[in-house]
Amino acid sequence: MRVDAADLVDELASVGRRFDARDWVLGTSGNFSVVVGRDPFRLMMTRSGIAKGGLTADGVVEVDVDGRALKPGAARPSAEALLHVEIACARGAGAILHTHSVWSTVLSDRHAAAGGLAIAGYEMLKGLEGISTHEHREWIPIIENDQDMPRLAGRVRQLLVEHPACHAFLLRRHGLYTWGETLPQAVRHVEILEFLLEAVGRADR
Amino acid sequence: MRVDAADLVDELASVGRRFDARDWVLGTSGNFSVVVGRDPFRLMMTRSGIAKGGLTADGVVEVDVDGRALKPGAARPSAEALLHVEIACARGAGAILHTHSVWSTVLSDRHAAAGGLAIAGYEMLKGLEGISTHEHREWIPIIENDQDMPRLAGRVRQLLVEHPACHAFLLRRHGLYTWGETLPQAVRHVEILEFLLEAVGRADR
Amino acid sequence: MRVDAADLVDELASVGRRFDARDWVLGTSGNFSVVVGRDPFRLMMTRSGIAKGGLTADGVVEVDVDGRALKPGAARPSAEALLHVEIACARGAGAILHTHSVWSTVLSDRHAAAGGLAIAGYEMLKGLEGISTHEHREWIPIIENDQDMPRLAGRVRQLLVEHPACHAFLLRRHGLYTWGETLPQAVRHVEILEFLLEAVGRADR
Amino acid sequence: MRVDAADLVDELASVGRRFDARDWVLGTSGNFSVVVGRDPFRLMMTRSGIAKGGLTADGVVEVDVDGRALKPGAARPSAEALLHVEIACARGAGAILHTHSVWSTVLSDRHAAAGGLAIAGYEMLKGLEGISTHEHREWIPIIENDQDMPRLAGRVRQLLVEHPACHAFLLRRHGLYTWGETLPQAVRHVEILEFLLEAVGRADR
Repeated sequence: MRVDAADLVDELASVGRRFDARDWVLGTSGNFSVVVGRDPFRLMMTRSGIAKGGLTADGVVEVDVDGRALKPGAARPSAEALLHVEIACARGAGAILHTHSVWSTVLSDRHAAAGGLAIAGYEMLKGLEGISTHEHREWIPIIENDQDMPRLAGRVRQLLVEHPACHAFLLRRHGLYTWGETLPQAVRHVEILEFLLEAVGRADR
Repeated sequence: MRVDAADLVDELASVGRRFDARDWVLGTSGNFSVVVGRDPFRLMMTRSGIAKGGLTADGVVEVDVDGRALKPGAARPSAEALLHVEIACARGAGAILHTHSVWSTVLSDRHAAAGGLAIAGYEMLKGLEGISTHEHREWIPIIENDQDMPRLAGRVRQLLVEHPACHAFLLRRHGLYTWGETLPQAVRHVEILEFLLEAVGRADR
Repeated sequence: MRVDAADLVDELASVGRRFDARDWVLGTSGNFSVVVGRDPFRLMMTRSGIAKGGLTADGVVEVDVDGRALKPGAARPSAEALLHVEIACARGAGAILHTHSVWSTVLSDRHAAAGGLAIAGYEMLKGLEGISTHEHREWIPIIENDQDMPRLAGRVRQLLVEHPACHAFLLRRHGLYTWGETLPQAVRHVEILEFLLEAVGRADR
Repeated sequence: MRVDAADLVDELASVGRRFDARDWVLGTSGNFSVVVGRDPFRLMMTRSGIAKGGLTADGVVEVDVDGRALKPGAARPSAEALLHVEIACARGAGAILHTHSVWSTVLSDRHAAAGGLAIAGYEMLKGLEGISTHEHREWIPIIENDQDMPRLAGRVRQLLVEHPACHAFLLRRHGLYTWGETLPQAVRHVEILEFLLEAVGRADR
């Protein structure tokens, strides 16, 4: 379990610069979190309304299992904190990353009616944890976007039960959620999935 | 109200580098302004004919409510100064940004006959000031480009009256105008809108 | 007329980094030149077979009006030196730039049968020297590529006579040539034209 | 033959940063190798599971003609070491580079049924070693991806015999392999081929 908050902020800032350079977190979109305690549950998370390309210690906040800031008067956590908590608990993930790229947005809409998107036969799939061959079919579920966070968190919980093998999901017209045991693994999952979504989007003429 | 001109130039230069890296201000396209006085009205604005990726103090000029340089013999303000003044006055904006990306150019033409472009249902819309849900329909008006600046300024004035809720507009085959209470807010609006225009442009096969 | 060779190399290196970052001079493609003397005619030019993203003094060579290196034993000039000489002489250009982007390559082929490509009605056209309105129709001639440089130089000479108002031309499946009175003006022309070619290429579904 | 391992790591790290910036080695995709001995055969190669944008000495490993790490307990070489060995031996290549771009992935699938992809008439082809005119037809063979590395290595051996003039091949839905006498030549081949694949992919509406 991590302890050094300054190091963690540095790592998140580096991830932010990397994703920002690729236009995956434009505006103040996207949010990142890392589990810093399990008992009690503690999540270090980017706060609401900040650009991810220039993250500093002020840009993160510690939240509890209900997605609420631990310290009274602390900055407001991202509204999507509850989704991060659901993923951390359901998957035992150590890091959760939400990006908001053009291609994930476009495909989340194009395949919404089907409830998801299958990606199969690509070598890049081996970059997903536990996948050792390109002969794999990854189902990326898509759920409707919702501003009611407890309700959306409930749908995410259900989605994670119904799709126990999935490495990610899309919120419709909103973007990608993925996770990993560690922050580097979650970063790798973002890169793999953003690559695959662009490849599928461009192939599908 | 801002007072330190050097800091302001630094901020504008940083915006210029960020937009230049994304090819939103190629050549000497685009122009930026910040309101530095209301009584009398004063606008600090990028001057005509300079590349935005390497802005220095020489690259900005202070203009009055008629878009004319305050100091005799100063560098020529951008020809579009009048449009910035209209926006600053009609919206009470503190910063106005004009970018010139490929996608805004393409969509400004594709949707010109309809007089504008509706973008609805995207989470990214929440990055626009005052919008708190993706269930929002943003109308981006498009008007014909014109080299007669007083005439075009008049059309912009009218557009801002007719569309009191709009956050931006497009000049046909010319690019995007958006604004904000502060420079960071206007930057966020540029990023949100450039993202949405690219997403809509790619989705629309 | 320029005199300081070290400054000139620095400027060309800066142009090279800028174009390389945009993938306009991948591999060892593209070439740049600046007129450093008119009587006798002298051209400082990038030499053959070097990557433009890391230009140094070793990467340029001075050539005469026949495109031959001035100093015996000097590095080989780019094979396309003769084309640069034609442009410098016919247009009185002080700098000539050849880029090799994906979009210029694609459009040079798509419009080859028509002998060229008209771009009209775009604000960005005003970035071309001497153009003061978007209500301009720029004709970009396209000629067949050829490895016989004297023959190709002859065709370029003829093209420049037949199209006295053109700011650029395309070699089919090869890329863009443009120029300017000064290096910064030629750089601006590259950016304007690469932007317009991409916009036209994306608009043309 | 190279001897200084630190210099070689620096060169490979520089290649990694360059390709990473272009999204050709996202996640931990791609692998690079350089022949450091012929008798006995020795290959310095990126190891399995590392990101190429931040290569250090820890990220490379020396392998023998069977693709096995020379030092007991060394890091695991990339699973594709055997393919690099085949290319090094069959072509006398000094450096082998595997990239994994969106366009190479898309085209490797689009043209798989034809067994390959012909690229002809492009000036950029002259960047391939030994090609001196655009009037060249480069055949890029495509073979099915396979997780059985000895079997896939056998197919690569056969492919290199059947296509003695080819400069590269594609693994289906997996990416590009190319090589060169030296590392800079192999880098040039990657850039040329990635450019051409993107141009062909965009032209082919």
